[in-house]
Amino acid sequence: MSETFQEISPADFFYRNRDIAGFTNPSRAIYSTIRELVENSLDACEINGILPEIYIRISPEKEPISDPSIYKIRIEDNGIGLPSNVIPSAFGQVLFGSKYKLRQTRGTFGLGGKMAILYGQITTHGQAKIISSIGDSKSYEYTLTMDIQKNRPIVIKNKTHGNKSRWHGTIVEFTTEGDYSRAMAKILDYLKQTAIVVPYANLTFVDPRGRFYKFDRATTLMPKPPTETTPHPHGIDIETLKRIIDVTNSRTMKDFMKRHFQRVGESTARKFLEFADISYKRKPKNLTQEEIVKFVNAVKNYEGFLSPDATCLSPLGKELLNTGIKKELNPEFIAVHQRRAAAYSGYPFIVEVGVAYGGDVPKSGGILLYRFANRIPLLFDEASDISYKVTNDMMNWRHYRVVPDTPLAVFVHICSTKIPYKTVGKEFIADRPEVEHEVINALREVARHLSLFLSKKHHMEREKKRLDVFSKYLPKIARFSTKLAKKKKIPDVKKLMRSAARYAKEE
Amino acid sequence: MSETFQEISPADFFYRNRDIAGFTNPSRAIYSTIRELVENSLDACEINGILPEIYIRISPEKEPISDPSIYKIRIEDNGIGLPSNVIPSAFGQVLFGSKYKLRQTRGTFGLGGKMAILYGQITTHGQAKIISSIGDSKSYEYTLTMDIQKNRPIVIKNKTHGNKSRWHGTIVEFTTEGDYSRAMAKILDYLKQTAIVVPYANLTFVDPRGRFYKFDRATTLMPKPPTETTPHPHGIDIETLKRIIDVTNSRTMKDFMKRHFQRVGESTARKFLEFADISYKRKPKNLTQEEIVKFVNAVKNYEGFLSPDATCLSPLGKELLNTGIKKELNPEFIAVHQRRAAAYSGYPFIVEVGVAYGGDVPKSGGILLYRFANRIPLLFDEASDISYKVTNDMMNWRHYRVVPDTPLAVFVHICSTKIPYKTVGKEFIADRPEVEHEVINALREVARHLSLFLSKKHHMEREKKRLDVFSKYLPKIARFSTKLAKKKKIPDVKKLMRSAARYAKEE
Repeated sequence: MSETFQEISPADFFYRNRDIAGFTNPSRAIYSTIRELVENSLDACEINGILPEIYIRISPEKEPISDPSIYKIRIEDNGIGLPSNVIPSAFGQVLFGSKYKLRQTRGTFGLGGKMAILYGQITTHGQAKIISSIGDSKSYEYTLTMDIQKNRPIVIKNKTHGNKSRWHGTIVEFTTEGDYSRAMAKILDYLKQTAIVVPYANLTFVDPRGRFYKFDRATTLMPKPPTETTPHPHGIDIETLKRIIDVTNSRTMKDFMKRHFQRVGESTARKFLEFADISYKRKPKNLTQEEIVKFVNAVKNYEGFLSPDATCLSPLGKELLNTGIKKELNPEFIAVHQRRAAAYSGYPFIVEVGVAYGGDVPKSGGILLYRFANRIPLLFDEASDISYKVTNDMMNWRHYRVVPDTPLAVFVHICSTKIPYKTVGKEFIADRPEVEHEVINALREVARHLSLFLSKKHHMEREKKRLDVFSKYLPKIARFSTKLAKKKKIPDVKKLMRSAARYAKEE
Repeated sequence: MSETFQEISPADFFYRNRDIAGFTNPSRAIYSTIRELVENSLDACEINGILPEIYIRISPEKEPISDPSIYKIRIEDNGIGLPSNVIPSAFGQVLFGSKYKLRQTRGTFGLGGKMAILYGQITTHGQAKIISSIGDSKSYEYTLTMDIQKNRPIVIKNKTHGNKSRWHGTIVEFTTEGDYSRAMAKILDYLKQTAIVVPYANLTFVDPRGRFYKFDRATTLMPKPPTETTPHPHGIDIETLKRIIDVTNSRTMKDFMKRHFQRVGESTARKFLEFADISYKRKPKNLTQEEIVKFVNAVKNYEGFLSPDATCLSPLGKELLNTGIKKELNPEFIAVHQRRAAAYSGYPFIVEVGVAYGGDVPKSGGILLYRFANRIPLLFDEASDISYKVTNDMMNWRHYRVVPDTPLAVFVHICSTKIPYKTVGKEFIADRPEVEHEVINALREVARHLSLFLSKKHHMEREKKRLDVFSKYLPKIARFSTKLAKKKKIPDVKKLMRSAARYAKEE
């Protein structure tokens, strides 16, 4: 018996295994489609500090709708736009993109947008139309399909339009099969939660029945755009090192270290090279195989490196998180906290958390958890996520006066140049001990504030009850005593009430 | 601001995102390495009905071991071997392999073995040595590394040896970084559970301290090898259909349907084409875009197709499952059950389950769950798996006389031409309703047997107690009465005892 062997393209791989990218069935697929495209659009705005204006429309191709059904998807953004020559590959070729950098973006795999178009193609045999401009005098329109077996775009038509208004942005339109009725709740949830973490965006969504959903920006304050960074020494392996050596112009190892690694200066470079037993004058391109291994091993064991640079990260900040939570849940009490930057395997990350009490937070059913990663709401597979584990298994909420019926919502936002997702579908975050440590400490911090608030609240409630008693009986006693003393003027009890209240406060 | 775009190879993609393939850290990586290579070896045997002989060795490169440390991995099997010309790509190129077929194999992604070698390369800068023969007069030895950026193998050396003994099989050897002390428990668990579902294999494992673990076969009975099959109409989409049209020689649609689809005969083909409103005489290669869409839509809505063919599947069978469970847990009671074949999205699958009571099954800590998919033990992310959900959330065990302290183990084996894994690391199975339905029905069936057994067991225990009372007092009464009657011969109470026991049985 002999076996036949075959090479498949990455597009073919993800076509065959689309489940692992979140395209399991018509309901999940339409959710993933909207999500991936919205994320690309938001990235395209934030990268250049543009206040996002995103328009999303799902319209039925046939009426009446009977799900699963064919829908036309249209997404418009005012992002930086795409240069004409990359448009076909950016939408018609898997593993092609601008996301393969050390930078905090929503996209990391360079996969989602193309999977949406691929899924549309295999279910409806349709073509995708892309219109984009970088804000110069022209805009470009492409009609394309994907050659899945070759992983290449096939351009059917392309047109150039004038662009007097200097519009910049991207419009994507294609047909796909979806089950909107099943996906609706999740899609709306996704947009609502996006509005929480992106409170500076205008999102408009028109659903298949023509219903408008508007999520207006609550602020024009934007976090600073994320910047690209060089790798931290703790994040490198032999392959990375060899790739850097391939492209470097450095003539000495000392210069090499300073130029290509994060937070390595003159002194760190010298000390490390001494530790590694490699001359600082050595030419990087002349390193032997053995020296490369030696270098990487030394990097792992050297403890003198500064921790990864988090200035490239773009967390929300306490103010924006506060704004977002208030807008969504209108709670009685909010506490937010941002931890200082930490790192895992050479990647910097920052954890931000919030707790919200009362207001529109529902009372039963445990703690309402909102999870975010690089400003993406994560809605699936909650129980496998690190934030769920910390919130539900590791926090001793009772210690913070939180009892089972307390109306409590917890928000966890993790941002990093590399989010440790466990799946290509970006549903949940692996339990890295470093991340776990930050999440629990952040939650403890906000829980302390919550505990103080709850304690005050209980005290005030007791006090109010006590004063209610006074205010009920004191006037009666005053009236009765006046009558008894056969006097006419009922004495003023307000003074007494005030002193009772004052006394209570001093307790 | 302009963005830079880049195309990356699939090897580069999985190198950057090795977490999603199960290569997260040195402990997880060495577990995944062993697992992926053992699975490839077992596939290489079973495909041709060879009784597997697998030898696995992990030896330290330096002593004393201080984890994470560099280990040499060596795996030998007696499988069908690889033709010389495919050896380099089979081990040095991602998305190349023999697993991209509709057939029940452990491997599905064509990824695991290469990821193991890739991980070894990026952590130790080592080369992989492969020796293989298909059992002819030659064996081939390759020393290679991977060009990750190009996704191509680089052959450093290759040699041809004579092979007088007509040995067939494959030997893989390379160095890798691992944390064996942390991974040990999981690796041993994995091998133990593999021995349960592959009771016809001999597995030998030599750990870094030179300890031998032997898992000897308990039977020479093997399930029949899995066979390759054509797609079921319900599993096709536009892309699949177009690919079949590209390669077909059929001149009519009727012939096309019969030749390329599972369980479609003359009558089904005719009826379906009439339903789809496509002439059965039409030439497949002349179908228009619209007709292709029409065909695929009709396929989805046509209910006259026979259900997918499960003869291509190779379940364990009740006997082997029984053998495996007995060998592992030596329980007091076993019940096993195999469901009839079912299907999801055109893929056939079979669910087999077992319950084991008593013996070496631990008493506390809930139900011990063993999960298997195409004869792979699944050890990670249990709580996200469909079998966990059914066993722990959906089964009403109390109904079957199972109380919290009952020493109970549950085995679930799912085999299919396509296991709906949720991750590339093959850790857990998505909750497809069709699969859920089969698992719960199978568990109910074995639970009924268990319930009968437990009921009998309780009855017997009560009965034993009752007879114990008789056997304690009857002889005394007999003696006493004899004395009282001043007789000498004490009457035989055995007859009375027997009738008490008989009476009890008739109750």
